[in-house]
Amino acid sequence: MHTKLEGVFAPIPTPFNADGSLALDKLAHNIAIWETMELDGYVALGSNGEFPLLTADEKIAVLETCRSAMKSDRLLIAGTGCESLAQTIDLTKRAAAAGADTTLVVTPFYFKNRATDSMLAGYFKSVADASPMPIMIYNVPAYTGLFMSTEAVLDAAQHANIIGMKESTTDVVKMAQIVAGNAPNFTLLTGSASGFLPCLSIGVKGTISAFANFAPERIQAVKRAFDSGDLATAMTLQHALIEPNKAVTAKYGVAGVKAMLETRGMYGGHIRAPYPQLTDAERADLMAIARRYDLIQ
Amino acid sequence: MHTKLEGVFAPIPTPFNADGSLALDKLAHNIAIWETMELDGYVALGSNGEFPLLTADEKIAVLETCRSAMKSDRLLIAGTGCESLAQTIDLTKRAAAAGADTTLVVTPFYFKNRATDSMLAGYFKSVADASPMPIMIYNVPAYTGLFMSTEAVLDAAQHANIIGMKESTTDVVKMAQIVAGNAPNFTLLTGSASGFLPCLSIGVKGTISAFANFAPERIQAVKRAFDSGDLATAMTLQHALIEPNKAVTAKYGVAGVKAMLETRGMYGGHIRAPYPQLTDAERADLMAIARRYDLIQ
Amino acid sequence: MHTKLEGVFAPIPTPFNADGSLALDKLAHNIAIWETMELDGYVALGSNGEFPLLTADEKIAVLETCRSAMKSDRLLIAGTGCESLAQTIDLTKRAAAAGADTTLVVTPFYFKNRATDSMLAGYFKSVADASPMPIMIYNVPAYTGLFMSTEAVLDAAQHANIIGMKESTTDVVKMAQIVAGNAPNFTLLTGSASGFLPCLSIGVKGTISAFANFAPERIQAVKRAFDSGDLATAMTLQHALIEPNKAVTAKYGVAGVKAMLETRGMYGGHIRAPYPQLTDAERADLMAIARRYDLIQ
Amino acid sequence: MHTKLEGVFAPIPTPFNADGSLALDKLAHNIAIWETMELDGYVALGSNGEFPLLTADEKIAVLETCRSAMKSDRLLIAGTGCESLAQTIDLTKRAAAAGADTTLVVTPFYFKNRATDSMLAGYFKSVADASPMPIMIYNVPAYTGLFMSTEAVLDAAQHANIIGMKESTTDVVKMAQIVAGNAPNFTLLTGSASGFLPCLSIGVKGTISAFANFAPERIQAVKRAFDSGDLATAMTLQHALIEPNKAVTAKYGVAGVKAMLETRGMYGGHIRAPYPQLTDAERADLMAIARRYDLIQ
Repeated sequence: MHTKLEGVFAPIPTPFNADGSLALDKLAHNIAIWETMELDGYVALGSNGEFPLLTADEKIAVLETCRSAMKSDRLLIAGTGCESLAQTIDLTKRAAAAGADTTLVVTPFYFKNRATDSMLAGYFKSVADASPMPIMIYNVPAYTGLFMSTEAVLDAAQHANIIGMKESTTDVVKMAQIVAGNAPNFTLLTGSASGFLPCLSIGVKGTISAFANFAPERIQAVKRAFDSGDLATAMTLQHALIEPNKAVTAKYGVAGVKAMLETRGMYGGHIRAPYPQLTDAERADLMAIARRYDLIQ
Repeated sequence: MHTKLEGVFAPIPTPFNADGSLALDKLAHNIAIWETMELDGYVALGSNGEFPLLTADEKIAVLETCRSAMKSDRLLIAGTGCESLAQTIDLTKRAAAAGADTTLVVTPFYFKNRATDSMLAGYFKSVADASPMPIMIYNVPAYTGLFMSTEAVLDAAQHANIIGMKESTTDVVKMAQIVAGNAPNFTLLTGSASGFLPCLSIGVKGTISAFANFAPERIQAVKRAFDSGDLATAMTLQHALIEPNKAVTAKYGVAGVKAMLETRGMYGGHIRAPYPQLTDAERADLMAIARRYDLIQ
Repeated sequence: MHTKLEGVFAPIPTPFNADGSLALDKLAHNIAIWETMELDGYVALGSNGEFPLLTADEKIAVLETCRSAMKSDRLLIAGTGCESLAQTIDLTKRAAAAGADTTLVVTPFYFKNRATDSMLAGYFKSVADASPMPIMIYNVPAYTGLFMSTEAVLDAAQHANIIGMKESTTDVVKMAQIVAGNAPNFTLLTGSASGFLPCLSIGVKGTISAFANFAPERIQAVKRAFDSGDLATAMTLQHALIEPNKAVTAKYGVAGVKAMLETRGMYGGHIRAPYPQLTDAERADLMAIARRYDLIQ
Repeated sequence: MHTKLEGVFAPIPTPFNADGSLALDKLAHNIAIWETMELDGYVALGSNGEFPLLTADEKIAVLETCRSAMKSDRLLIAGTGCESLAQTIDLTKRAAAAGADTTLVVTPFYFKNRATDSMLAGYFKSVADASPMPIMIYNVPAYTGLFMSTEAVLDAAQHANIIGMKESTTDVVKMAQIVAGNAPNFTLLTGSASGFLPCLSIGVKGTISAFANFAPERIQAVKRAFDSGDLATAMTLQHALIEPNKAVTAKYGVAGVKAMLETRGMYGGHIRAPYPQLTDAERADLMAIARRYDLIQ
């Protein structure tokens, strides 16, 4: 199985119709366009995919649609984490059957006062034991309120079927320690386009970041300069990436990302209630920002 | 409909068999025993009910079992909050049909950076509009990482079908402000047995606390002393409540509560993976604590 | 020595001239007016006294002025905490010589990662050993970023020369545990006028709160109702206290408190740079708030 | 004036005798040894210098001793920040007269709820206006509980007499934004030896880190590899730096740093009470760690 976890991955949004129902045809349309863009793969059903607001059946439908719409051999990474180990295993098996190459499993987090290092490492090992495909860890404290420690990650990373991690913080010391930990076949990806170059400098191999949904070229350019040893160019490109990334993705979240998709000919549409849509004023502000940073003309 | 939100409510655990499956017969057995104890009602599918680890169908089965096992006219409060508004409304309707009197709806919390006051108030109003039964708000930052503000609560509390709230923090100033806010027919319950008396002193009407699952008499005694104007006794009883409550419920969480059920003739059993069971040593420690505070002989 | 730590204490601001120098004459003038108000004592050199911006010599001058201006036998409590134990002991001795009755010693906090329970308890015991007057503990995490635990407080409270504490949080469970801890001659005061009644309900004896500087009557009224067993009135008065207290003291800090002094015929004046003065618009807003809550006509 | 803010700087501890008094002779001895080590300069009176526990007069004595003991033209950076603007300006002037080249001014932080961006930027500009030497900003949230924002830094950085900053967090995105902000003659140093390479990758020019007090060669080696374009070596060296740095400096703080000085022939001695000395067991543990990482034989 092909699981080269290097490069720039888009954490794709899940398209909905105005009534909140899944828009699978729009998803296929979007995939066709992403296939023409400079991307190394897709994460479906991540935070940008609004996974906590989807049913298990909807999640499988999303994956099947992605797989059938993909023409390349790019990676399809599925978000399959649930609070319950049994539910996570079940969804992971169904995701593999639906065509996912690997899975990004968010840390369980509701009972955060019970989530010790050994519980977390044990959880990922149990999922890995049961999973027909390799799995990845997803640490995203901004949403979960839980931080998986370096020690817990390195413990889990010893498992042959745990192949990597998306670290959504910009904790470069933790990331360096994980890379230095010499876990066999364990690849680290960052969730932050704004901190991409510093992460590359200590051994991170790629990024899964919202910005990649509509401007992957700018992130790829940082990596290309870094890989060629041209640090000065990499730094200049990285610096230029921060403001548009923060302005677009941090300020307006998934609703903003969906609006940006439309600037590349994709379908954006609504996000699911109760989270709020962009107002007209916010959409205008977003487009002004995009214009300022040459994301649109 | 009877919805007198005053008194001491048990947030009942969901019983599981060793293989993790629902133990509905054990639930009926436990209800029969709780019916003999000094309680004013039950919250099924709250945090102590491990709601984030249950499927929607399991949740309905729990509610149906509770309703059919209950012989009293005590309140049955159902936890029906999901991240998605549509899912919350759907589950709330099913819960009402399954026999719940009212529902405790946790704040949506995954995209906490998008959860403004107006979004939260609007969410609860939308649920209330669609719900066939009155609803309650559930604020529990220790698990959700999200704090619903006084202003948002008072906004939601204007809705005729929003009848109360469980505030799980010990923020007495917030609670006093809500009581002082003169929302019509809005009742505040605290989640903290340890802070019960201070809450009563500013107008809170009762409590939903884990300790009530196995020692409701001690909490009722505080309320009785307070209601009769005997503050000195209320204070003494409150002081005596804190250590056992913290030692039992805070130290070992739901696994500890389940172990304590067995001291009152109920079924305890496992909690769902990946959250950890009590070790033998922890169970022995828990029993020693219970003995020290005269919860068992 | 008289150290009855019960009642309502004003944490008095330190008056400065426009050039930032100490205005000791204004302080004497203010004391004369406070002496006519319903207060049980004064805290000089607390947070409202801007203690971190004063030199040791200035602090002693403040205390000497307070003592000579006071005609009553009310308590004079001096803030004497420094980061260094030696400096705290030195200042405490000088404060006693200057006429203070007791001292409020803030927790050391800069190296918060080194501040264990035993370090903190040991610190207060060392100060108590060396102090010619009894001492009190001052826990104020909002400013220090450090929370002194129940266990550390109860350890320190065993010392015969440690007579009490100002707890600035509204953590009623911690306060109840301290009261229940049966420390001999240890009195707890709350820093929160907004949470005064809940604190009284579990054994707190009084309050040191900014609001007492210009409206102590409203706080005394809560205590009087509580002491007489009229809980309903106490609750009504407490509810009415929260909004003006938050609006005036929380919104504008020490600058706001100084502006409010002028409404009672006292001198307010500047706060020390770099902390910002009220703008004209802020002052107008403050006065509008004060009018809304009948603090001025 | 020479103020080349590039390289590796030691934030030197202040030596004390066992009775807590200043050991200026030991300081001169230590300086003589540091002068033989691979360092670009010294920060006296930083957090490692225990500045919050020193009087103003002691601080000046430390600076005078450093200057007279220094034979090189390395930079002498003095910590002169106080809560009060007037005190900071006064101490800064005295520090310049005592021989400091520049000053590291910690953010005021006690009234953190009043510390807006404009207040902080204005504060540093006021110090810069009054200072006879150029000044630097010191942001250290782990101790102050206050985070100075990118916007506030870039505002202050426009001032001609504000020449740089020590950022003690590992927030690489903030640091990149500051570098990208094109402030004229504004140099960024990181406080983290563990995160040094990622910081270099986005334009940070050096580091002030505790580890430099006793093993500057290892940090210099990272910078040399980076400057020569040998990223692979830089990464390997950076990875190897993290564990010893965390084990020695994070685990035992200033007391640990002082103990490590002795491994290089310098005087270590006590830290000031109330902060705790190393126990014998801790000292043995520290030496075992140092041996494991080849910091001693």
